[in-house]
Amino acid sequence: MLELAFRPDPKLREPVYRQLASYLRGFIEAGRLPCGEKLPATRELAVALGISRNSVIQAYLALGELGLTRGHVGQGTFVAARPLPEARPGAPRGEWERIPPTPRLVPLPREFAWGGLFALRARDFPLQGTLRRVASGGAFRFDFRGGQVEGAALPRRPLSRALAGALSRHGAALAAHQDPRGWPPLREQIAQRLVARGIVCEAADVVVVGGAQQALDLVGRVLLDPGDTVVLEQPGYFGAALAFRACGANLVGVAVDAAGLRTEELARLLRARRVKLLYTTPAVQSPTGAVLDEARRHALLALADQHQVPILEDDYDSELRLGSRATPALKTLDRAGQVVYVGTFSKALFPGLRVGYLVAARALLDRVSAAHFAANFQTSPLLQAALAELIHGGTLERHLRRVRRLYAERLAALLEAVERELPEGTRFAPPAGGTSLWVELPPRADADAIFSAALEAGVAYARGDAFRLDGTGSSALSLSFANLPAGRITEGLALLGRIARAHSARGGRTSGLESRRA
Amino acid sequence: MLELAFRPDPKLREPVYRQLASYLRGFIEAGRLPCGEKLPATRELAVALGISRNSVIQAYLALGELGLTRGHVGQGTFVAARPLPEARPGAPRGEWERIPPTPRLVPLPREFAWGGLFALRARDFPLQGTLRRVASGGAFRFDFRGGQVEGAALPRRPLSRALAGALSRHGAALAAHQDPRGWPPLREQIAQRLVARGIVCEAADVVVVGGAQQALDLVGRVLLDPGDTVVLEQPGYFGAALAFRACGANLVGVAVDAAGLRTEELARLLRARRVKLLYTTPAVQSPTGAVLDEARRHALLALADQHQVPILEDDYDSELRLGSRATPALKTLDRAGQVVYVGTFSKALFPGLRVGYLVAARALLDRVSAAHFAANFQTSPLLQAALAELIHGGTLERHLRRVRRLYAERLAALLEAVERELPEGTRFAPPAGGTSLWVELPPRADADAIFSAALEAGVAYARGDAFRLDGTGSSALSLSFANLPAGRITEGLALLGRIARAHSARGGRTSGLESRRA
Repeated sequence: MLELAFRPDPKLREPVYRQLASYLRGFIEAGRLPCGEKLPATRELAVALGISRNSVIQAYLALGELGLTRGHVGQGTFVAARPLPEARPGAPRGEWERIPPTPRLVPLPREFAWGGLFALRARDFPLQGTLRRVASGGAFRFDFRGGQVEGAALPRRPLSRALAGALSRHGAALAAHQDPRGWPPLREQIAQRLVARGIVCEAADVVVVGGAQQALDLVGRVLLDPGDTVVLEQPGYFGAALAFRACGANLVGVAVDAAGLRTEELARLLRARRVKLLYTTPAVQSPTGAVLDEARRHALLALADQHQVPILEDDYDSELRLGSRATPALKTLDRAGQVVYVGTFSKALFPGLRVGYLVAARALLDRVSAAHFAANFQTSPLLQAALAELIHGGTLERHLRRVRRLYAERLAALLEAVERELPEGTRFAPPAGGTSLWVELPPRADADAIFSAALEAGVAYARGDAFRLDGTGSSALSLSFANLPAGRITEGLALLGRIARAHSARGGRTSGLESRRA
Repeated sequence: MLELAFRPDPKLREPVYRQLASYLRGFIEAGRLPCGEKLPATRELAVALGISRNSVIQAYLALGELGLTRGHVGQGTFVAARPLPEARPGAPRGEWERIPPTPRLVPLPREFAWGGLFALRARDFPLQGTLRRVASGGAFRFDFRGGQVEGAALPRRPLSRALAGALSRHGAALAAHQDPRGWPPLREQIAQRLVARGIVCEAADVVVVGGAQQALDLVGRVLLDPGDTVVLEQPGYFGAALAFRACGANLVGVAVDAAGLRTEELARLLRARRVKLLYTTPAVQSPTGAVLDEARRHALLALADQHQVPILEDDYDSELRLGSRATPALKTLDRAGQVVYVGTFSKALFPGLRVGYLVAARALLDRVSAAHFAANFQTSPLLQAALAELIHGGTLERHLRRVRRLYAERLAALLEAVERELPEGTRFAPPAGGTSLWVELPPRADADAIFSAALEAGVAYARGDAFRLDGTGSSALSLSFANLPAGRITEGLALLGRIARAHSARGGRTSGLESRRA
């Protein structure tokens, strides 16, 4: 029987029979199923491909409609011929017998059948759904989605100067540099900043990558074989789920409460199954903003040690907190080199900069560098050198002082507005850092209706289900305060509040601030 | 028996017994193997872990030397206790019985045992070897390695202006942009440039990524499951081998001659085994510089069509050739959307820019974008917007005219010097484009001795074995002419020539230019 590599792709909008028909069409048009050849019996082919017989029958019918096959009752289905582009478009069907044998190369009139060729893990790439919930789509009047900052918070002139300075001072070195570990002066500066935060490291312990997301991806590629288990916080950062799922990992969630990751639940999980990696955001839990408390930090390290599970600490907010009353990183307690620490400049400057870093044991860093080199050689040394200039001249520190004030004002405006505008029973608490507020609507609110009506009215936010592995939690909202000035935040919340109250069984006010920290 | 996830890592410099000892030490010090517990019998453990019994015995002896285990003749090996940090360093060995039971959390005195935790595919990351051959190491007086350009060929001022212009004109959009498909104006410009080259496409068919290397990586992630077969040219671009090996693919080479990829050899291979992806550099074969001839182009497309194999065309040199007498891309002949076309700005500007692009069928592009988003969200929109400014103002075209002249001069100097300086019997031919010359030393030359002596004397080049899957071919050299002015090229070749002649059985001159094209 014909050897077919066809595998139906459940993610395609096309039904299976159409995918199979496209696939077979490619074979026929390529002359690989020659004119007059009998196609496999529908039952046989269905079994061989693991699809329904009905799909095969429909695929054969579709090919017949294209004039590519003919059925002879009781005898099966036969390849007719492929319609050559030269053939008169009006030529009557059924004349296939007179079409000359297929020449070697004829342009295919339709698309190559990609459907069956995608890698198994690539079929799950959840771009459509996740992007729609957190990031995609057009411009909104009030955009509370994360991953963006307002233009006014972008230090345009200092950044221009730093880029020009990097090019004029280091042009020759930049044009030649290709060390996947990063631009040496920047590695040195990152190490110094981390030492100031209590993390024992030197430049050689730092690897610069293309943002925190690339750090997660590379650690995943180095540690995860398909089928390995990764533990994530729930709700948790959607980017981590994306990165580890793309590595073929199984994701398991552990719940988060006001004191961060529930370590007792983690302990039960670790006893029950072998876990390859634990991802956590202990300093400012993403998306809830909770801080992992002292006792749980020690419990987390002890559990990871006991079960020999590496911890990936995503301290995405470190630069914004740096120098202020910062929550310490878990990494400061790590004596064995078991914690892989990830930081980024996306929050301090803007996400489009795409520069982040890792600090980890050398054995891991060597492989992360190798994976980085294979993935895209290195992070743009031009951007790295510009960042080093910004740090060196003290410009980054001045900018950070400015945006910390700015974000504090905006958070205050947001808290006040959420308190005033959202329906009674809405739960929220000031985050320990970061640029988002986590808000849970009361059960009587119709979360789906609110989300749709808000988008309609020009108010966009990330819905809670984007942060859940099981797709539940749509009654929560993650509201970024990095993307709008305080006045616009107030205005946007007034609009969102009207919509939310209209779609809640009783209108009313919130039950007030619940401070999650004493 | 104790459940151990230990897997020895052949890439570590540490012998297996030390890896196992470190691993067990972690368990003991974590209290998971409590005081007095009997360790598994050496024979049993060796079988369970798939390592030699000798390694287990040595590991137990090492643990004994640390005071962590005690052997009782005829009874086996028992956990002693872990030395608490509080314990007096001078405390006599053997007093473990008096050390109190292990508390929950004690800092581990040594490194976390990463050895057994790496993913199977991560163990093969060939950073050390490949980087050493093509890219790593210090500064050389004469550096003929690829992937770098000379500072003078870097348009510093235009690039500074473009970056500043992007920030001042598009700051707000850049701060908010996060479409993994790329910065819309740049996608539009790339599409226009490609249409001018005969490739039928529009902006929606273009996805911008972090360099051609990331394009290869993302296509690999979307199409390749571990164990899938990828066909590469031999000799061939080392970056492609890195990218696809990191996806867990099996790599199979097909030879290249003066007319490019040998399609008859490919035909035999495709009949013999199922191939998932075919990687090729038809316009300017990397590293030999050959052009795939007309008949083979048609044969290649027919074969790919017949066997339903996607073609990944890496047209890394397109921008340098663009507008001049350009070799057409294979993609211009692609009617079915079977060819994935990859281009880059690394050659036109500098590799540290890290911006490249793909043109492919939408079904593939959708998944590439999803993979890109999971890997690092997007390519820095700041760099993309700056590039769009450079193209828009005509600056890139002016720069290209300048570097095309510059590289033509340098290539002429290199050809002349190779002809004059390298030993008789050296074979080479002017490349069709690109920035490297492929040179094959005669058999009587001692390629290893020449390579070492050259490095010693400050002359670096990429050796042929870096472009071979089987590690052969070290008598070839890839000499980049992008990184040195013509005078320095002549000077460097004089030095390399002296070395090469000294390490060849007879001194002498080359046999002259062999033009591979009529």
